[in-house]
Amino acid sequence: MLQISTRAGAMPASPIRKLVPYAEAAKRKGIHVYHLNIGQPDVETPPAILDAVRNADIRVLEYSHSAGNESYRRKLVEYYKKVGIDVDHNEIIITTGGSEAIMFGFFTCLNPGDEVIIPEPFYANYNGFAVAAGVGVVPITSHIENGFALPPIADFEKVITPKTKAIIICNPNNPTGYLYSREEMEALKTICLEHNLFLFSDEAYREFCYDGAYVSALHLDGMDQHVVLMDTVSKRYSACGARLGAFVTKNKDVYGAAMKFAQARLSPPGLAQILGEAAVDLPDSYFDEPKAEYQSRRDLLVSRLNAMEGVFCPNPGGAFYAIARLPIDNADTFCQWLLESFSHNNKTLMLAPATGFYGTVGLGKNEVRLAYVLNKQDLSAAMDCLEAALKVYPGHIPLSSTTEHAVTF
Amino acid sequence: MLQISTRAGAMPASPIRKLVPYAEAAKRKGIHVYHLNIGQPDVETPPAILDAVRNADIRVLEYSHSAGNESYRRKLVEYYKKVGIDVDHNEIIITTGGSEAIMFGFFTCLNPGDEVIIPEPFYANYNGFAVAAGVGVVPITSHIENGFALPPIADFEKVITPKTKAIIICNPNNPTGYLYSREEMEALKTICLEHNLFLFSDEAYREFCYDGAYVSALHLDGMDQHVVLMDTVSKRYSACGARLGAFVTKNKDVYGAAMKFAQARLSPPGLAQILGEAAVDLPDSYFDEPKAEYQSRRDLLVSRLNAMEGVFCPNPGGAFYAIARLPIDNADTFCQWLLESFSHNNKTLMLAPATGFYGTVGLGKNEVRLAYVLNKQDLSAAMDCLEAALKVYPGHIPLSSTTEHAVTF
Repeated sequence: MLQISTRAGAMPASPIRKLVPYAEAAKRKGIHVYHLNIGQPDVETPPAILDAVRNADIRVLEYSHSAGNESYRRKLVEYYKKVGIDVDHNEIIITTGGSEAIMFGFFTCLNPGDEVIIPEPFYANYNGFAVAAGVGVVPITSHIENGFALPPIADFEKVITPKTKAIIICNPNNPTGYLYSREEMEALKTICLEHNLFLFSDEAYREFCYDGAYVSALHLDGMDQHVVLMDTVSKRYSACGARLGAFVTKNKDVYGAAMKFAQARLSPPGLAQILGEAAVDLPDSYFDEPKAEYQSRRDLLVSRLNAMEGVFCPNPGGAFYAIARLPIDNADTFCQWLLESFSHNNKTLMLAPATGFYGTVGLGKNEVRLAYVLNKQDLSAAMDCLEAALKVYPGHIPLSSTTEHAVTF
Repeated sequence: MLQISTRAGAMPASPIRKLVPYAEAAKRKGIHVYHLNIGQPDVETPPAILDAVRNADIRVLEYSHSAGNESYRRKLVEYYKKVGIDVDHNEIIITTGGSEAIMFGFFTCLNPGDEVIIPEPFYANYNGFAVAAGVGVVPITSHIENGFALPPIADFEKVITPKTKAIIICNPNNPTGYLYSREEMEALKTICLEHNLFLFSDEAYREFCYDGAYVSALHLDGMDQHVVLMDTVSKRYSACGARLGAFVTKNKDVYGAAMKFAQARLSPPGLAQILGEAAVDLPDSYFDEPKAEYQSRRDLLVSRLNAMEGVFCPNPGGAFYAIARLPIDNADTFCQWLLESFSHNNKTLMLAPATGFYGTVGLGKNEVRLAYVLNKQDLSAAMDCLEAALKVYPGHIPLSSTTEHAVTF
């Protein structure tokens, strides 16, 4: 009998996608499903960047340089300059989405058996890359009560061992929407310098900060050798399907090592690079509209949620996610029930149970992640559904015991 | 001091690309370099498939399904049917180039410490994926004297241990151009069934078989649970830059496990999938022209090489590569010397030293790989350069001792 590998067995199924069959079944029954479960923006991809692909003069669609087209990397240098990051084109490797940049980080900097510390809840796919790389994920818990702020330095120090090699942050954060302050970024710097750790900084949502200033890991003085930036155009330009990201580091050893992984897979997607290069030439004002749109959606979402009995949702400072605590027994059961057994005016909504974003088993059981990637009318209708659902959900937990419940976590 | 990972240190640099700086230096000196070093075809990408991308109606470039668009997978079922492979769209995962399909195979089927047997010389990047996955590559040597035919079953059996989990073949072969016969494929089947091994079959060059019939691993009866097909559109449609491949298996456990890796990286490139889907609708006659072109190039290349004193090049049955034995001391030195110290009418050529394609250290020292990806006029001019170079190369080894030398290896 042929066996799959142990690591394949250990790979987590996507917590975002595992409810998909239930959503498909609901749709087959004629129920409209509002998708707040996945970070797929509905914002239009800028036509100008799609036109750049349409108008490209291609005779042979050739391999690009393994680090990506030099012209695109040079363009990205301009882009990074605009956001206060000073890098050279030889410090950038173009990747297949932010995903590949994360993978390069794991394989380049970490040995099997090494550990990375990640504030939880965190982007669930870090788990997948960690399993693939044989690396242990050590979560430290951030809490809904203070909006998922960075845990105190003492919490990091409690779990640092000789195996600890890196800290991973996502800023602004997926799934919490939390935007790390200058002080929090400086705290991370202190830990990384003192304990000689890499800082993997996933900044996929950089353009979407609503309250407070965005501080990149590459804004931190003295951290050049420690920082690996993982970036993507997916959310920035609403171009998730392009699969175009970047691995950025000033550490020459890390860069050189990552280039060997980049060479093994030959080159990043070619058509997408044309799109990415054109995107840097979009006017700076391009972001005004999507950012204002996301912000107004956030405001609508958070106020609707907090107006529901027993619901608490901190106000996220960035990205387009929020985590809400609901008066429910079990988020996985609830999210499945929404799709399987509930509808309101023939509509329902799909949410991501927060359990999948925690590394600590048992956490997030009464929390869900909501991606505000729908227009306000649909978002409002989705909130109507949620409000109605909470009133009839069999596993509803009344307010007082919910509060108690929340304290437990 | 921050350290890169051990596996990153162990990652081989690309043998195909490591001479690039010397080629760049030659070009800066005004010397024209004929690139026979890399499998980047000069054949035009079919305009119809680029037009499909140009004309696609895209409002939001969204993530696709992690397995790739269902419409594209269903189209690929039609394509595979044409080449005698009967698969369902739920047995296909669309990948980022053939590279990702290879990676999924390693990570899904093999544990760290497991071993794969690969007839050498072999596609060098298998080494990279093996290092990333912590898997040991066990080469068994095929020989230039019989055109790099499959080594006898006894050679496989000599190296099979309890750690052996898979055999990897590339058919038709990169770098040798060898096309495995029905009998050789049946021999592989016998070994895999007897020793319970996976057969990873990289069939990137399927369309380019000149002598004898192509036999896919999925043509073998009774091997459904053993075969993982690694495929790509790169060479088929001269679309290397698209980064579009496929992982195909009828083994449901392997498919399910690979899907978890596919979900972790979200989705394959979106624009490329449009191109790939359109490609299946190209008329069957599309391949006639590139195939005839490659075949006539092969004929030119092989006859020119064998007409040179001390040179031997077996006639490859497929793909667009040939390995030639040259009357030289050291292929790495020679290939660098061609770029650094030689020119003929202000021209030179870039070749891939065969050493990088052998797993056994010391083999391939007087062999080079030539990719016949240039038009016949350029190919002929490149052969003029090579002929002239061999006459003046300081490390030239006269015919008699070369023959001796060849016997040594």
